[in-house]
Amino acid sequence: MKPTILVVNDDGITAPGIKALMDVMKQIGNVVVVAPDSPQSGMGHAITIGKPLRLDKVDIYEGIEMYRCSGTPVDCVKLAVTKIFKGKKPDLCVSGINHGLNNSINVLYSGTMSAAVEGAIESIPSIGFSLDDYTLDADFSHCEKFIKQIALMVLQNGLPTATLLNVNFPNTAHIKGIKICRQANAKWAEEFDERLDPYKRNYYWLTGVFQNNDLGEDTDVWALENHYVSIVPVQFDLTAHHAIPVLNSWKFDV
Amino acid sequence: MKPTILVVNDDGITAPGIKALMDVMKQIGNVVVVAPDSPQSGMGHAITIGKPLRLDKVDIYEGIEMYRCSGTPVDCVKLAVTKIFKGKKPDLCVSGINHGLNNSINVLYSGTMSAAVEGAIESIPSIGFSLDDYTLDADFSHCEKFIKQIALMVLQNGLPTATLLNVNFPNTAHIKGIKICRQANAKWAEEFDERLDPYKRNYYWLTGVFQNNDLGEDTDVWALENHYVSIVPVQFDLTAHHAIPVLNSWKFDV
Repeated sequence: MKPTILVVNDDGITAPGIKALMDVMKQIGNVVVVAPDSPQSGMGHAITIGKPLRLDKVDIYEGIEMYRCSGTPVDCVKLAVTKIFKGKKPDLCVSGINHGLNNSINVLYSGTMSAAVEGAIESIPSIGFSLDDYTLDADFSHCEKFIKQIALMVLQNGLPTATLLNVNFPNTAHIKGIKICRQANAKWAEEFDERLDPYKRNYYWLTGVFQNNDLGEDTDVWALENHYVSIVPVQFDLTAHHAIPVLNSWKFDV
Repeated sequence: MKPTILVVNDDGITAPGIKALMDVMKQIGNVVVVAPDSPQSGMGHAITIGKPLRLDKVDIYEGIEMYRCSGTPVDCVKLAVTKIFKGKKPDLCVSGINHGLNNSINVLYSGTMSAAVEGAIESIPSIGFSLDDYTLDADFSHCEKFIKQIALMVLQNGLPTATLLNVNFPNTAHIKGIKICRQANAKWAEEFDERLDPYKRNYYWLTGVFQNNDLGEDTDVWALENHYVSIVPVQFDLTAHHAIPVLNSWKFDV
């Protein structure tokens, strides 16, 4: 029997990236798409609690069961599991293909990755895919054979408990191979454009420069710079286990 | 010299919880408050990239430097570091006191905790505080002596590199003490209220039940149920290091 595959993203249901991912998944399973009705980049693990959500069946690509959702990428996964699959979970959850990298610390800010994290929390084998090209007309064709193989491997082998995969592609057709990596210790050096609105009031627009001080050749940043596909296994237990003995040595007096 | 302390939250600048936190911090340092102008619960690590942000100085509580921000809790920290502190980072970043627990998996959904995570990414010693009471008129008075001591300990000892603290309080004045914990392996069993709007169209509202199947007595859930303050050290390296050898054993053929 063909596997059932949930396809989500954060760039919205009409983004070319989700079309590319859907087209690969159609080759290996029965696809259900649940995606935000508008772009949700940078939404991280946000969920919608203070207002209602819409979920509407739409007919965009022939023969594909698709739903657009008014919420965040994580809302899409929650609604899919509860209202579409109704307890019979899909065999795989794939998110993307994101227009833009989600390597290193970006895993935290990314709606694409957070949707995949939510899939993993729901015990669904989950993978996020992202390409190093922010443009709407990004060319995803060189990613397809890798996506197909990684998805098949996950369907065949499963994933270690409470983990998922963060897969990033360099923007080149000349890919050297796949590297299993750790998340590079990098961050954004924030900047904000400071501007004046038509009423002469200040406003700010987030910009920033990605700063990597982690020279390890086992990182996703290194792999991508050297034209490898990076795969980082990701977990959602954020406990810093190594810090527990340090804190236990503190003498609280309360 | 008194330490400089950045106070943030996700319940918004007028929430009683941030007032309670600010009042404790005033006893130990120079306080700067930067908080969302409206409630931002459940915003996780969301950042605002597709639209502009406002940051306005406001005069709410006498003698306190305060700014309200139109963005998410993480936006507040980024704007504070870049536009208010301008590179001279605060000595401590505290977030909360959240109206409602942020134990276990809630660390991912919580704007309060994500603000503290962002502080830690900026290399500022950071702590998130949350109380097991969702109501607006929650009583925070029994938390105060613990908050003061934990903040002083962090100022004195620092924290292990790339970690922060997630502190949760039970809703009782009879607290037995402080436990250093790991994040319990629990999740939300989602439900969505399905309703009809005035135009007879469907909408959904997220509800859900917190499900803990983790019986460990070293978890935050156990500590809180047994009337201890829970402290979980949190990290933002999401790499599942134990899964790297597993993935390296896969034979990719691309």
